[in-house]
Amino acid sequence: MSMIKIEARNNEFLDSDEDSLYHLGLKKTPQRLHQLQEMFGGVKYVCMGGSPERAMTFGNKAAVELGIPKSEGGIQAIGKTERCHMFVVGPILSISHGMGMPSLSIFLHEVTKLLDYSGCTDVKFIRIGTSGGVGVEGGTVVITENAINAKLEPTHTKTMLGEDHTFPTQLNGPLALDLLAASEGIETVIGNTMGTDDFYEGQGRRDGALKPPYSIQDRMEFLQKIHDQAGVRNIEMESTEFAAFCNRAGIPGAIVCVALLNRLKGDQVEASPEQLTQYSDNAQTVVINFIRKHLGR
Amino acid sequence: MSMIKIEARNNEFLDSDEDSLYHLGLKKTPQRLHQLQEMFGGVKYVCMGGSPERAMTFGNKAAVELGIPKSEGGIQAIGKTERCHMFVVGPILSISHGMGMPSLSIFLHEVTKLLDYSGCTDVKFIRIGTSGGVGVEGGTVVITENAINAKLEPTHTKTMLGEDHTFPTQLNGPLALDLLAASEGIETVIGNTMGTDDFYEGQGRRDGALKPPYSIQDRMEFLQKIHDQAGVRNIEMESTEFAAFCNRAGIPGAIVCVALLNRLKGDQVEASPEQLTQYSDNAQTVVINFIRKHLGR
Repeated sequence: MSMIKIEARNNEFLDSDEDSLYHLGLKKTPQRLHQLQEMFGGVKYVCMGGSPERAMTFGNKAAVELGIPKSEGGIQAIGKTERCHMFVVGPILSISHGMGMPSLSIFLHEVTKLLDYSGCTDVKFIRIGTSGGVGVEGGTVVITENAINAKLEPTHTKTMLGEDHTFPTQLNGPLALDLLAASEGIETVIGNTMGTDDFYEGQGRRDGALKPPYSIQDRMEFLQKIHDQAGVRNIEMESTEFAAFCNRAGIPGAIVCVALLNRLKGDQVEASPEQLTQYSDNAQTVVINFIRKHLGR
Repeated sequence: MSMIKIEARNNEFLDSDEDSLYHLGLKKTPQRLHQLQEMFGGVKYVCMGGSPERAMTFGNKAAVELGIPKSEGGIQAIGKTERCHMFVVGPILSISHGMGMPSLSIFLHEVTKLLDYSGCTDVKFIRIGTSGGVGVEGGTVVITENAINAKLEPTHTKTMLGEDHTFPTQLNGPLALDLLAASEGIETVIGNTMGTDDFYEGQGRRDGALKPPYSIQDRMEFLQKIHDQAGVRNIEMESTEFAAFCNRAGIPGAIVCVALLNRLKGDQVEASPEQLTQYSDNAQTVVINFIRKHLGR
């Protein structure tokens, strides 16, 4: 039986004795199961972001802020580090998922299997990312109300065996509001997030290598339209996959992304390295504030 | 004017003075242009693969095999290493692109801009990856004839400003044959490659976290069909984006992926770490043999 209570749980496979969690570099075997349960059994918050560096920064920051002991050199990655970096800090699993929905999807499956094997209960998934703001300035944290796809639909379509399967992408409303309540002085808004499969042309940028098949005016009208008519406040590359997976799995999910720039004003990320670090820190702080409150500390 | 001769070159942007190649961590400015040209101007072969580790391994191996000097501790990454690792080894740019088409797409744009700014000529793009074999065993190298999408079409569709744009995905035939001729004793085949946006359900696996909406028999019939009727010999997560971009840019492109398993026999990657290293080495060796011949060494 699943302790994590996965709704569309793949019982047939998950109840078998062995599983190679290939991209994590971990294995379930009858001999190793107890070890996985000891290491991961206490996880309540899975915090995912694109880059390995940010996954480590978040883990170290969470340890300090929540008073969780860590070794002197900082937290250590678990498993293989070729495809992602994964850390456990008290009740937090901090993991990088790379860029884009296909990469994210791999880690959603493998982390969910890992938590199922480890007997975790009451787990929440929180994506902490970066994004292009739409009508919000760099540094603003956007908590996602609904994830919408590149055609402005609140759905995510996956092609399986040549056939399209479409899944809804609403996110957990109460969790989003709890995160908003934890913003504590950091500029934070709730809005819709557009998830695209492309950073340049898929987000209407005009600074890619190839001549885009749309004009500056087309671009501006589209960005203004998604802001005014679809309530979009930021664009990134993971939200619809994340939301669709959480829905299917029945796991409460939230997306907390900082805007690196206001796309209504430009295409290029021009913030300084120091500003970018501060921006990224804003999103992490909101999530750590939430976890602190949620743990009752 | 573009020295790299990009066909659909984005003249309007590429001829401007400044560009932040954000994910590479490099900038074009009038002051830094000469530095970029010195560092990257001699690049002829862009070799891309998913993982940072393999990008480094390939660079070090190429240096040894082609007699290119490197510092004692091995080759050093250029730019920021948060999103990719990039190395220059003689005429080779070795770079990681993460997993999946959205992540790959970012690096295709930024590397192409970088090579344009650096005044490179006669550049080829070669993706060196891992894949699931279809009717070929683990360790076999598959050189892609045509990239086909998850619906078995030789096209790649991108959504831009809410509209679909579809591009052809044929690859450079002569380059594929030159690579095949460089296999020198390594089991190598030419065949079609299916590019999907999902590792688990998008490739018909039944070992994900969620109950897949297809049966074992559906899965087996689909894999047999793509093998028999569509000439597919491997499945990975980048080929159609890669081919579509190379076509639009007019850059000769090839895809050389090793199979990690035969998907007609199973879903899980069960090869040992030593076998996986050997498999990965097979694909790298074919490409290095090709470059050696092409350089006339």
